[in-house]
Amino acid sequence: MDNEILQALRARKSVRVFTDEPVTPDERVAILQAAFQAPTAGNQQLYTILDITDPALKATLADLCDHQPFIEKAKLCLVFLADCRRWPRAYRAAGVAAPRDPGPGDLLLAMADACIAAQNAVTAAESLGIGSCYIGDVLENAEAMRKALALPSHVVPACMVVFGRPTDQQKARKKPVRFREEAVVCENTYRDRTEAQLREDFTLRGADLPEFDFDRYLQAFCQRKYDSDFSREMSRSAAVYLKDFM
Amino acid sequence: MDNEILQALRARKSVRVFTDEPVTPDERVAILQAAFQAPTAGNQQLYTILDITDPALKATLADLCDHQPFIEKAKLCLVFLADCRRWPRAYRAAGVAAPRDPGPGDLLLAMADACIAAQNAVTAAESLGIGSCYIGDVLENAEAMRKALALPSHVVPACMVVFGRPTDQQKARKKPVRFREEAVVCENTYRDRTEAQLREDFTLRGADLPEFDFDRYLQAFCQRKYDSDFSREMSRSAAVYLKDFM
Repeated sequence: MDNEILQALRARKSVRVFTDEPVTPDERVAILQAAFQAPTAGNQQLYTILDITDPALKATLADLCDHQPFIEKAKLCLVFLADCRRWPRAYRAAGVAAPRDPGPGDLLLAMADACIAAQNAVTAAESLGIGSCYIGDVLENAEAMRKALALPSHVVPACMVVFGRPTDQQKARKKPVRFREEAVVCENTYRDRTEAQLREDFTLRGADLPEFDFDRYLQAFCQRKYDSDFSREMSRSAAVYLKDFM
Repeated sequence: MDNEILQALRARKSVRVFTDEPVTPDERVAILQAAFQAPTAGNQQLYTILDITDPALKATLADLCDHQPFIEKAKLCLVFLADCRRWPRAYRAAGVAAPRDPGPGDLLLAMADACIAAQNAVTAAESLGIGSCYIGDVLENAEAMRKALALPSHVVPACMVVFGRPTDQQKARKKPVRFREEAVVCENTYRDRTEAQLREDFTLRGADLPEFDFDRYLQAFCQRKYDSDFSREMSRSAAVYLKDFM
């Protein structure tokens, strides 16, 4: 069971170092059009995409997104915003006296819409030889991010994606191994993995890492990622955005 | 600027009526593997996928998701759960004494991970001639949904996708027109569309609808969708899930 599209989805990996070659205007349009053509709840396109072209703003974003300078070097930089504002504004323009305020359900639906569109953009770019990297850190620093991107209420960064052609070194980089199916798929109902299963799941996934040790790996990952300053900041910041919807 | 992948992304439209032909075990694996190979924050795969095989459970989901009986007829039915539980459990298994509780940032990041994986599944299915439909309504009825799917705390439905081969009638159905670029893309910073621009954006998008009238269309859509019972229920229910993370 294989075809060109399955191969492309399998081969795609994040690219964080880009060549100097630009993303052309035609390529940019193809990437954006693929995003628009993604499935979207009720054909609403509950997102706005910011195309970041200003180098100073790119530098600000690189700083606000956990200080990742490679973001500045992106040839195309798109911020996918969950937008719960466009449709209520259109309702008002159409004479609906008082549409309800957007709630947390609207936000989560718009987050899904935005991420689904973003993944189509990523797949389209890949088909053109253009690599990409998601920047989840765009959720951090709500106050400064709102100011930098002029975000009004009910508009929340869902993800940022940076694009550019991979260097040879990036092309050669091995894609990290994913979990096997039984680690992340359950039949019908949710069941926790047992501690023994977790050890096996992570150990199989770590097969390509040098001298993988479950305890050491998870302890270090927890410290470096889950319990890091940026991760705590992400939850503080997300709560700021959520306040609009509660 | 065109290729097989761009064409496939453009052609894909939702399918809600399926032929009797099954999704084969090989096809199922190809769809799931494409989901696993999607970009994922820090290679964490912050999701669990429920493969709903039990007809009685499918019927329950059809009912809980705003009473959409076609869900029961799906040949493959996947619920993508944002899972903020697996990694903290693994941290504990690895001897981390007290990993912090998952916060709203963790939830939004996991929601993104789950939806990005879902869209790869959709694209993979499409390449095999298998249609799909997102069911955003899976966010509704948190209490009953948690019971039906045995969802523990910190595990939230991000989206559901049903799969099957399109009937001829579904193949012939026209894909709805999307907004033009300027309606959903801003350069650098967010700017509201003016009322005149909104009227134009929606009118262009409505070009294929019979006798499109901005006021009438938006008023009816607001009543039927945004201000509907299921939409209010979605926000009530989302707030129940969010409580875990606040």
